[in-house]
Amino acid sequence: MYLPQHFAETDAARISEVIAAAPLACIVAQTDSGLLANHIPLLAKPDGSLIGHVAKANDMHQIMRDGQEVLAVFTSLEAYVSPNFYPSKQEHHRHVPTWNYITVHVHGTIRFQHDRQAKHAAVGLLTRVHERRVNGDAGWKMGDAPADYMAEMLENIVAFRITPTRIEAKSKLSQNREARDYDGTIKGLRESGQDRMADAMQDRATPPVQME
Amino acid sequence: MYLPQHFAETDAARISEVIAAAPLACIVAQTDSGLLANHIPLLAKPDGSLIGHVAKANDMHQIMRDGQEVLAVFTSLEAYVSPNFYPSKQEHHRHVPTWNYITVHVHGTIRFQHDRQAKHAAVGLLTRVHERRVNGDAGWKMGDAPADYMAEMLENIVAFRITPTRIEAKSKLSQNREARDYDGTIKGLRESGQDRMADAMQDRATPPVQME
Repeated sequence: MYLPQHFAETDAARISEVIAAAPLACIVAQTDSGLLANHIPLLAKPDGSLIGHVAKANDMHQIMRDGQEVLAVFTSLEAYVSPNFYPSKQEHHRHVPTWNYITVHVHGTIRFQHDRQAKHAAVGLLTRVHERRVNGDAGWKMGDAPADYMAEMLENIVAFRITPTRIEAKSKLSQNREARDYDGTIKGLRESGQDRMADAMQDRATPPVQME
Repeated sequence: MYLPQHFAETDAARISEVIAAAPLACIVAQTDSGLLANHIPLLAKPDGSLIGHVAKANDMHQIMRDGQEVLAVFTSLEAYVSPNFYPSKQEHHRHVPTWNYITVHVHGTIRFQHDRQAKHAAVGLLTRVHERRVNGDAGWKMGDAPADYMAEMLENIVAFRITPTRIEAKSKLSQNREARDYDGTIKGLRESGQDRMADAMQDRATPPVQME
């Protein structure tokens, strides 16, 4: 992707946070019938590989070759930034609109897994993470469902693993703005109801620096 | 994409709403150096074509061939759906977690435009829409900036137009659930702070139907 240095996210912890915060990746591949994209929740394993599963009825596991190049795009936040947010606009009016966003692109190779163990592990790991987030200790567990039902469910899916070959991450968060405009952007985002992006900008450990 | 019939969005007005509500598209293409993706705000013209612009420094306009196939992915909403949201779970426990989301995939061909008129039109149209949304009548206009500055800005961008060849749209909103579980999902989404998805499910004109 287009990645000016001041927007490049190189902090591995932050990159992991984006994947964890926005797990519904858009997985893209070039196929014989053109570009194919599917939204699929993924989980990053400690070794960096991404695991997930698709319905057996989703022919992605037949169209894509084992070992094929795919791109998994995670986007945790995005917000329109108006020039009106910048206090310096009143002085020189030398501003144009832009968009802030946080995205991680994981390029890698995909391999599908049809064995019960891999499928069980993919469902179990994904479920545990998301149930804990939504329901805490009352989270749903695979064991809550009848064994015959879970066996049937696992029969109807295919697991896969994406082994990363290259990761590009971009945190486009007004880092190229002078301090008063950075702060004004946070204020403007809040006033236009975009609090999550405002929080992300406020929370950044690195103070804004003037790059223009 | 994988598109079971009950999740297929065929309503042109709803498809347009998704593009308008989530204009920051992820534009993907297969290039000589692999898959390339960039997040770029797009605007749908009345004829269905998508217009946008990139920084001249973004080599996407050099890497992609004129007339090349691209895929623009718009995703307006996504939310995790826990089996705990379904009242029927208490009876038979035959449920697994899933994810709801709304996405539009526009497959098309891209052509870059280097003339000042096309670039001015792209910036003007995008700006007008987004400024009106954020700032109403007080919206920023291109005319607010000094002419020399705008000329310099236009010099530094390349406009483009994507002509659609195929559009796939998916509104995965629990339409395959029985009524009580559909309503329970709305309640569960609200309780887990996912009000926008709850609103989208509540607002749907078509009542939920049991498909299982």
